Amino acid sequence: MTAMTSFRTLVRDLSRLDIRNFGTDFISTWDKTRDQLEATMLAAQILQKLQRDKIPAKLFDSGLAVSWFRDQSTRTRYSFRAAADLLGLGVEDFDERESQIAHGETARETATMLSYLTQVIGIRDDKYLGEGERFQEEVADAVQAGYEEGVLPQRPSIINLQNDQDHPTQSLSDLLHLATEFDGLKRLKGMKIVMSWAHSPSYGKPLSVAQGVVGLMTRFGMQVVLAHPKGYELSPAVTRLAAKQARRSGGSFKIVHDMKEAFEGAQIIYSKSWGPYALMKRRTSLNRSGDSAGLKRVERMMLSQNSKYKNWECSEAMLKRTKNGRALYLHCLPADISGLNCRTGEVSRSVFERYRRQLYLQAGYKPFIIAAMILMTKYEKPDQTIRAVLRKNKRGNI
Amino acid sequence: MTAMTSFRTLVRDLSRLDIRNFGTDFISTWDKTRDQLEATMLAAQILQKLQRDKIPAKLFDSGLAVSWFRDQSTRTRYSFRAAADLLGLGVEDFDERESQIAHGETARETATMLSYLTQVIGIRDDKYLGEGERFQEEVADAVQAGYEEGVLPQRPSIINLQNDQDHPTQSLSDLLHLATEFDGLKRLKGMKIVMSWAHSPSYGKPLSVAQGVVGLMTRFGMQVVLAHPKGYELSPAVTRLAAKQARRSGGSFKIVHDMKEAFEGAQIIYSKSWGPYALMKRRTSLNRSGDSAGLKRVERMMLSQNSKYKNWECSEAMLKRTKNGRALYLHCLPADISGLNCRTGEVSRSVFERYRRQLYLQAGYKPFIIAAMILMTKYEKPDQTIRAVLRKNKRGNI
Amino acid sequence: MTAMTSFRTLVRDLSRLDIRNFGTDFISTWDKTRDQLEATMLAAQILQKLQRDKIPAKLFDSGLAVSWFRDQSTRTRYSFRAAADLLGLGVEDFDERESQIAHGETARETATMLSYLTQVIGIRDDKYLGEGERFQEEVADAVQAGYEEGVLPQRPSIINLQNDQDHPTQSLSDLLHLATEFDGLKRLKGMKIVMSWAHSPSYGKPLSVAQGVVGLMTRFGMQVVLAHPKGYELSPAVTRLAAKQARRSGGSFKIVHDMKEAFEGAQIIYSKSWGPYALMKRRTSLNRSGDSAGLKRVERMMLSQNSKYKNWECSEAMLKRTKNGRALYLHCLPADISGLNCRTGEVSRSVFERYRRQLYLQAGYKPFIIAAMILMTKYEKPDQTIRAVLRKNKRGNI
Repeated sequence: MTAMTSFRTLVRDLSRLDIRNFGTDFISTWDKTRDQLEATMLAAQILQKLQRDKIPAKLFDSGLAVSWFRDQSTRTRYSFRAAADLLGLGVEDFDERESQIAHGETARETATMLSYLTQVIGIRDDKYLGEGERFQEEVADAVQAGYEEGVLPQRPSIINLQNDQDHPTQSLSDLLHLATEFDGLKRLKGMKIVMSWAHSPSYGKPLSVAQGVVGLMTRFGMQVVLAHPKGYELSPAVTRLAAKQARRSGGSFKIVHDMKEAFEGAQIIYSKSWGPYALMKRRTSLNRSGDSAGLKRVERMMLSQNSKYKNWECSEAMLKRTKNGRALYLHCLPADISGLNCRTGEVSRSVFERYRRQLYLQAGYKPFIIAAMILMTKYEKPDQTIRAVLRKNKRGNI
Repeated sequence: MTAMTSFRTLVRDLSRLDIRNFGTDFISTWDKTRDQLEATMLAAQILQKLQRDKIPAKLFDSGLAVSWFRDQSTRTRYSFRAAADLLGLGVEDFDERESQIAHGETARETATMLSYLTQVIGIRDDKYLGEGERFQEEVADAVQAGYEEGVLPQRPSIINLQNDQDHPTQSLSDLLHLATEFDGLKRLKGMKIVMSWAHSPSYGKPLSVAQGVVGLMTRFGMQVVLAHPKGYELSPAVTRLAAKQARRSGGSFKIVHDMKEAFEGAQIIYSKSWGPYALMKRRTSLNRSGDSAGLKRVERMMLSQNSKYKNWECSEAMLKRTKNGRALYLHCLPADISGLNCRTGEVSRSVFERYRRQLYLQAGYKPFIIAAMILMTKYEKPDQTIRAVLRKNKRGNI
Repeated sequence: MTAMTSFRTLVRDLSRLDIRNFGTDFISTWDKTRDQLEATMLAAQILQKLQRDKIPAKLFDSGLAVSWFRDQSTRTRYSFRAAADLLGLGVEDFDERESQIAHGETARETATMLSYLTQVIGIRDDKYLGEGERFQEEVADAVQAGYEEGVLPQRPSIINLQNDQDHPTQSLSDLLHLATEFDGLKRLKGMKIVMSWAHSPSYGKPLSVAQGVVGLMTRFGMQVVLAHPKGYELSPAVTRLAAKQARRSGGSFKIVHDMKEAFEGAQIIYSKSWGPYALMKRRTSLNRSGDSAGLKRVERMMLSQNSKYKNWECSEAMLKRTKNGRALYLHCLPADISGLNCRTGEVSRSVFERYRRQLYLQAGYKPFIIAAMILMTKYEKPDQTIRAVLRKNKRGNI
């Protein structure tokens, strides 16, 4: 599983995985089997290799990808558009400006109206605990009903571009990055990875990156440590799941409240901020009641609570505690970098700069992971689909 | 004219219609002959069948479709983009934020600047009586002049995506829906259709959906009844036209001021709100003088006037008066649904939900109607264009 | 070099030019050799002819063009999208709303994140003297570093869609227009062209159009006169460059402070407004310190200073002073037209209207100039690339 691996090997490996019942959507990694996840990453690698070798991967002659953003985003929007373009889909942006969360009939109708010629809907809705995933599932139910009733000629795939629970396009990019850096998924077994909270002065960030990481890495036999100050707990459902998965995969899952302790001997560090759990929950109810003054107040409370933990920074001193002082540093970007875009943030400037090239590579998998999710949800036999692409472009005996 | 009709039959029927001098634009249905309208609907059916059969209908190798919105829209924007993508055109969105209505040289220049590589311009401008249609015609004149002067290498088609007078992409979708539901355009002859005003608490809506419906349905021999409270008259030019057309087509056209009376024995009900005529006219002059406080005041006056007619709701009791209590219910969506998104609106929740599947089918024709309009304005012999598409995709002996 | 010139001649002429080391970006015309500029214009003509002859010029199977606007724009945005679509690229719009100018790491990261599948980035950033060009160079450095480090599989071209120093897509469109109107670049040698300031009541406009014109036209042996009231100087670096280039090309460059004197005997008039130099510089520092009240105050000061020079209007009387009273009038559009969109502006209504057709032709080159810049920065042998396109479309023996 390196950049040099041949199409032949990659497609053969893809063929050997059991991907039956992949499903029409990609909402959470924990809805998928391990084979399905590996297949998605393999497909991403193949698509990336096609792009690097200038082999067109236009699977669709026409059709739309709807980019449905309920929060601001530059990078994920770009990644979604790049993935859609790669596969031959046009993109319709649908930006909801209103903060009120529309549910039920309204969501159902909007979903249908945006789906008549649509192959995929990517949705970002990460801000309110208890809302984002629920909304994505409502949209999935709506297009499923539309398809079953004969209103829609095809079933658009729903791709989670970050909700309140999981961020699968991120976590699978992260895992593919690890597999590439450490020369194979199998090598990750037994490695110590830390998912650590970090201080942020900018805003109360969603929990879903951290949840996505512990919810995914525990399935691959890693020694996963979750570190955060008290009050920054993740969703109990996700930590319970992580613990169960760790047992099954032969790895481990531990929660600690000391960054130094967590970093001891770690081989991989993922260090980023998220909002305090109690306030994140309060935000949801304030948003439901449309209390914008209350929302601003809670936002200030979050930053004030964060500021008690300024020492939770991925500094050089902190990194020295990791294995040989050289753990691989991960971040989903953009980062709060101390002395660059803030006074004290998630990471020190020198650490960030040393790992920048690798962070950019990590981010670069996302368009291909998204394209792979579209491929996997749309084609029952993605290996054959890719073989057809290669044959068409005379990359014969594959 | 059903979903099962073969390409052979559809294209043969299209060949038999006289579509000479179709024109380069589609602004109002009443500018087109009956054959031209039937041809547009047939082309829409063919394009829909191509899409369902996964036969690419990319008529253009490159070129742009400009989506020019002077009012907010989600659904029509999507439909236009889907139509453009289906035919191989990229979309450039041009959203005018400013409320002042630019005319004359300014409109001419903007139209030209957006047309150098443009095949079609879809325009929505429905808010101000006396403005929208005029503006679309100005844009049409501008690109015509640019084409004749050699400034533009092609003449972009102007497609009316709703103006103050007509909403042809809507009314033709509605008619195609009726023809499909009742098994053929000919079966509609003699049927009683009611275009009824309905109460809305949300805003003063344009008149053009209602005008489009009575301006189109009276041409197909239907018994058309227009129902509204006094003060909610449509444009006199349109009602005169509707009466004249009804006489010619062997149908009838009647205006009543009682919803109950109108519904008696009806086979088709189209029930939606629009603003009071006098206030709609006043809005135009206030907008011209840039009086935004005045515009807000008029808006409140509209809602206050609407609220006198809360019993103009398409309720279960009202629907019972229709033929066998089972008239087909139409709406252009989104609807003000009592007890769902408002207290008392255009339609009761149970009625809406019973007809939802059909309403979604009705809306689903719009992308194909728009694509058909592009096809008809761009190709003199659309039947041959479609035959070429089918041959290229080995749907031979057509 | 006319509309009737054959592909054979155009491509042959292109082959004869020395375009080695064209570079990966197009930031300023003065970074390019004369042959490289001529080649860009020839490529634009060829692409325009391909479009008029309906020969698809899709050089890319997939990939994105990022449209990065830090100022508002309708026309240039459209031109960029049209160029991208012509060559087969999808467009991702990235509009920065925030006025604060992000530099350094932040710009580097954003540039990288938007580049994974990107072939070209068009950037507009013209508002602040000393900022726009610097920013574009930072983005170019960022993607270059990303490419060299293996983070990006291709090096996106950076195209200047107007910065504070130059506006090459405009000036090359202008020059191509002149070469077409006067039947060849060579015929321009010795002609008198005036780049004149003009009064504007609307806002403090960037200097880069005027700088682009004198920085380009002085390279082609023209007698270039720059005219403006005192206080409206251009960047000293550009006027020094213009003087040096004029000497080398056998033309001349003169600065005068009297519009009448400047117009005497001129064959070409380019007459448009820009902001007073001292206030333009002050604007930059106010923007850096985020002083929005100060920015508004400076804007008012600019308009007040402009209003002292209302007689700097391209009127009929003024135009009578030109050669035979019939100089060719140029403008980059949109213009402040006296009696149309303002009381006293850059040009009188009758002058504007007499030249309108030519102004629209002038503007119409821009999409093709942009497409040509993409072609030239992406392909080492654009003549062979075009020959391949022609062969593929059976325009054989070329």
